[in-house]
Amino acid sequence: MTTTLSVKSPSVDNSHLKALKALDIPARLLLGPGPSNADPAVLAAMDRQPIGHLDKAYLHLMDEVQELMRYAWQTDNRMTLPVSGTGSAAMEATLANTVEPGDKVLVCVNGYFGHRLMDMAGRYGADVCQINRPWGDVFTTKEIRAALETHRPKIMAIVHAETSTGVCQPMEGIGDLCREFDCLLLLDTVTSLGGVPLFLDKWGVDLAYSCSQKGLSCPPGSSPFTMSDRALDALNNRKGKVANWYLDMSLLANYWGKGRTYHHTAPVNMTYAIREALRLLAEEGLDARWKRHQDAAERLYAGLEDMGLECHVPREHRLHTLTTIRIPDGVDGKQVTARLIDEHDMELGGGLGDLAGQVWRVGLMGYNATSDNVDKFLSALKQVLA
Amino acid sequence: MTTTLSVKSPSVDNSHLKALKALDIPARLLLGPGPSNADPAVLAAMDRQPIGHLDKAYLHLMDEVQELMRYAWQTDNRMTLPVSGTGSAAMEATLANTVEPGDKVLVCVNGYFGHRLMDMAGRYGADVCQINRPWGDVFTTKEIRAALETHRPKIMAIVHAETSTGVCQPMEGIGDLCREFDCLLLLDTVTSLGGVPLFLDKWGVDLAYSCSQKGLSCPPGSSPFTMSDRALDALNNRKGKVANWYLDMSLLANYWGKGRTYHHTAPVNMTYAIREALRLLAEEGLDARWKRHQDAAERLYAGLEDMGLECHVPREHRLHTLTTIRIPDGVDGKQVTARLIDEHDMELGGGLGDLAGQVWRVGLMGYNATSDNVDKFLSALKQVLA
Repeated sequence: MTTTLSVKSPSVDNSHLKALKALDIPARLLLGPGPSNADPAVLAAMDRQPIGHLDKAYLHLMDEVQELMRYAWQTDNRMTLPVSGTGSAAMEATLANTVEPGDKVLVCVNGYFGHRLMDMAGRYGADVCQINRPWGDVFTTKEIRAALETHRPKIMAIVHAETSTGVCQPMEGIGDLCREFDCLLLLDTVTSLGGVPLFLDKWGVDLAYSCSQKGLSCPPGSSPFTMSDRALDALNNRKGKVANWYLDMSLLANYWGKGRTYHHTAPVNMTYAIREALRLLAEEGLDARWKRHQDAAERLYAGLEDMGLECHVPREHRLHTLTTIRIPDGVDGKQVTARLIDEHDMELGGGLGDLAGQVWRVGLMGYNATSDNVDKFLSALKQVLA
Repeated sequence: MTTTLSVKSPSVDNSHLKALKALDIPARLLLGPGPSNADPAVLAAMDRQPIGHLDKAYLHLMDEVQELMRYAWQTDNRMTLPVSGTGSAAMEATLANTVEPGDKVLVCVNGYFGHRLMDMAGRYGADVCQINRPWGDVFTTKEIRAALETHRPKIMAIVHAETSTGVCQPMEGIGDLCREFDCLLLLDTVTSLGGVPLFLDKWGVDLAYSCSQKGLSCPPGSSPFTMSDRALDALNNRKGKVANWYLDMSLLANYWGKGRTYHHTAPVNMTYAIREALRLLAEEGLDARWKRHQDAAERLYAGLEDMGLECHVPREHRLHTLTTIRIPDGVDGKQVTARLIDEHDMELGGGLGDLAGQVWRVGLMGYNATSDNVDKFLSALKQVLA
């Protein structure tokens, strides 16, 4: 340790030097809004040495990931690929590539992530307008038609699965409206991909994003992004460069497409992981996967009803992957989540924004969507509420 | 698999459904410009179940990562944290947070990454100017003073370790000049952090970024970022919002600071990995780490000289972590790299930009910077050139 450097340099300051112990991570059952637990097979796939991001073997993996992502989303979009960041990066990519200063973007806001879409769109110079519903409600096609008529936006953004409220937005008819008004349909599928029925092409969706955790049961860090040829036209017809280098799909298309031109170093091990997550999804099949989530959710609803607890969202609009439970009068919601983690190593989410202090959020997603986990949760909640 | 869904939905299209085999990754010795091999201990640390990004245990890890990143960079900067993406995301974060439309940014360009800095700065509306040196040269303080006098920029960006050329920029005096001309000094340390002497505070650096692979021997996907209080003032005094939501340090400061306010879901497993990589760096100590890289590089130089091969960069400006070797006349450089990977499972880099077809790039970084790897490389290269 007392080597002498032949290079001329100042001496090292050890004031921030700390001797750390080996990593010690508590075993948690993650039943909050995310992250959720990873499938052990995904963790095993991730635990390999990286290879080069231009290695033939890696380029082959990229093709596999793109193809199975198309299956998962039910889309033929060529530009379907994982963004090298967590879900919010893929979210930002949808707006960054299509919004130019002055473009009108209409956001349907009925929860936290609608607000985030507005914030992001504004940063790219959009003229942002919004329609609102209370947190826990859905939008009707009538409301959407009226808003499209009034605002005539270039892009309309809506959240399929609102993680903050537990609402699943019915999508029938929305894509047709967006085509009628010649606007791009942007859909948040963060909490629906790999968990609940999702048909991007049949619904006429032009831009969508998701995450690697939740329904895919992969650690966070590699996030599905897709754009239709209509959205690609908007990108190709931009007046200026995309105002975000890292997420610029006109550059990324050359790496994910035939050119294989280096753009940025890929998060290689995250690609191993999401490839395994998608392989497992394909093996199970979408119908079976969606049914498993539905079964787990219905078992949860029944158990909550038995306990006299109420869901925040009416039955017909509930999201199978994420349930919001009304905190009963007189119960300290935060104390319950603290006890669940301390006494049961079980993570539950609290309310966000308009629902802060009013609900708990329970995620039963991907690997975690099992009757066994529902029973574990109900049993732990009963003990804590007793 | 033939379950009937009670939800009304179209039927699943299986045209993109592929049954994939289990992941099969070739074992490569990564001696190119990156990614480099990960330390097996880092891979082991990454291979755990995720926990919540607001879990007490996770918040504790965040503090540890910040503190050891300060040690690695030799800085006291409060705002020192990993960005949730690969190195280019951290690079973009330095500019996105400090550049406002019309701000003058001076970039010192003597390689590929200077061009990238210019491209990125332009996307944030900067009035970009540049000074140039041939690929393989360094800048003198005299040239820098003249450029600062002429352009009077808000930010001057320079690359400490040019991955495209193998040059290590001498930093003495540059920080003083930037203070004299009241400009922020932005430094690319992607290929120097954890590999060669680096003293951010003593050099007066205001903004810096790096990556998790290379000198830190972690997979790519979590990237060191730091800003001084002077740079933070520029952020706090912005007229408008940061034109990038995902990389907005005014929001991220609330998650990494006392508020612990949710911004985006963290790449939890990448944090496990970089924490282990930094723990190993602290255990080895910076002096020993730098000496190990210097020893490996010098062994490589001697071996190349014995083979009659020439380095592109004069000895006094060579970067220990990355060496550019001139491809001898009459040798097909691409055939050599192809044979090294096919016959020896060894990745080597080719030339980029102005050096395309002229050099090979050899990285001896982090875990890979050993005399054993130097010998393996020289022996393989001899066989292929024989």
